[in-house]
Amino acid sequence: MSDFKVIEIKKNVLEDNEREADALRGELKERGTFLLNLMSSPGSGKTTTLLRTIEALREEMKIGVMEADIDSDVDAEAVAEAGVKAVQIHTGGMCHLDADMTRQGIESLGTEDVELAVLENVGNLVCPAEFDTGAVKNAMILSVPEGDDKPLKYPLMFSVCDVLLINKIDVLPYFDFDIEACSARAKNLNPDIRIIPICARTGEGMEAWYEWLRSQVKQWNE
Amino acid sequence: MSDFKVIEIKKNVLEDNEREADALRGELKERGTFLLNLMSSPGSGKTTTLLRTIEALREEMKIGVMEADIDSDVDAEAVAEAGVKAVQIHTGGMCHLDADMTRQGIESLGTEDVELAVLENVGNLVCPAEFDTGAVKNAMILSVPEGDDKPLKYPLMFSVCDVLLINKIDVLPYFDFDIEACSARAKNLNPDIRIIPICARTGEGMEAWYEWLRSQVKQWNE
Repeated sequence: MSDFKVIEIKKNVLEDNEREADALRGELKERGTFLLNLMSSPGSGKTTTLLRTIEALREEMKIGVMEADIDSDVDAEAVAEAGVKAVQIHTGGMCHLDADMTRQGIESLGTEDVELAVLENVGNLVCPAEFDTGAVKNAMILSVPEGDDKPLKYPLMFSVCDVLLINKIDVLPYFDFDIEACSARAKNLNPDIRIIPICARTGEGMEAWYEWLRSQVKQWNE
Repeated sequence: MSDFKVIEIKKNVLEDNEREADALRGELKERGTFLLNLMSSPGSGKTTTLLRTIEALREEMKIGVMEADIDSDVDAEAVAEAGVKAVQIHTGGMCHLDADMTRQGIESLGTEDVELAVLENVGNLVCPAEFDTGAVKNAMILSVPEGDDKPLKYPLMFSVCDVLLINKIDVLPYFDFDIEACSARAKNLNPDIRIIPICARTGEGMEAWYEWLRSQVKQWNE
């Protein structure tokens, strides 16, 4: 009766998730589908960036989108109107997606005719950083109004991302945001992170982002 | 051997937390300390709003601040420099504070000479909304660059807050943000929510916020 077992819930959860994420990535490789996990704070411009990206790339590659949201359908509607396949994932209050939820989204979306699948994660800089979704690459958006100190405050998010889009650079004159300082802070956490300043609304800087995405999708299918 | 028990972890966690939050509120009432829980997305201006509020009210009432952050100490340093008692709470990766963590913060801060205690929660619109911290009132900041659709996407946060500060109104000309539409969406979720447009940087609208805070602290001590 004195025998007992300590259950490390969080550690187990994360390890299980990592296994599931690796399995999903393996299947996506076989199917020739590149999955991008797009993360940011609420209101950083994930949906606007995505809509503009769809507009620019939909003639070149088949795109599918999974919109994760606590509750609403507004983003999935906007994406469907842009003329690509879209599914809405309601997380039911959950603050992030894990690999299992992403798999459900992928199955519902279907991959037969999808070369680039984008997961728009829940707007949150904390929890989504902890859970590997099974995506091939992670992208994050930080918008100018949020401040250049964010890498100091949400280090894990900046550490797990392959590319950082600094959005809303059109309003740089009205905010105290130092792109150099922000980039140095991000690179200090993650020396390999690619940093691209953009304005999704006006289109400024977006060509560099499309180029990055094109080369990633191509590489994945080689 | 066929007898088994279903453990509803999340429900139990939330119920336990509610009990702890009520107990903490009871103790704060006895000690004459008003606790405000301040929430927002990353970069909405919690710290700037707080610093300006401290500057305006510190001659009138004794203020203490708890800064919750995943990892850094930058906000607590700024608050301590403003000349009030401050403690930093490192959540160790957690995306919100619960009543027990808040109690630890309160004990470390000490309440003997604190009439207004402010908890600056983790920058996140999802998880902090689910956990009652034991605060007397909840305040949230939504900044103009985040967009007026946020009540649709993070309904619980808008539902649990007593006051909504719409911050960064100085940049309204550069963003597509409709204060009326945003207010209607927030009131639809929470008819009693008080909405105050402000610019913490310039001070615009802040007097109405101070007045709300003054009356709340006074009421709590009656």
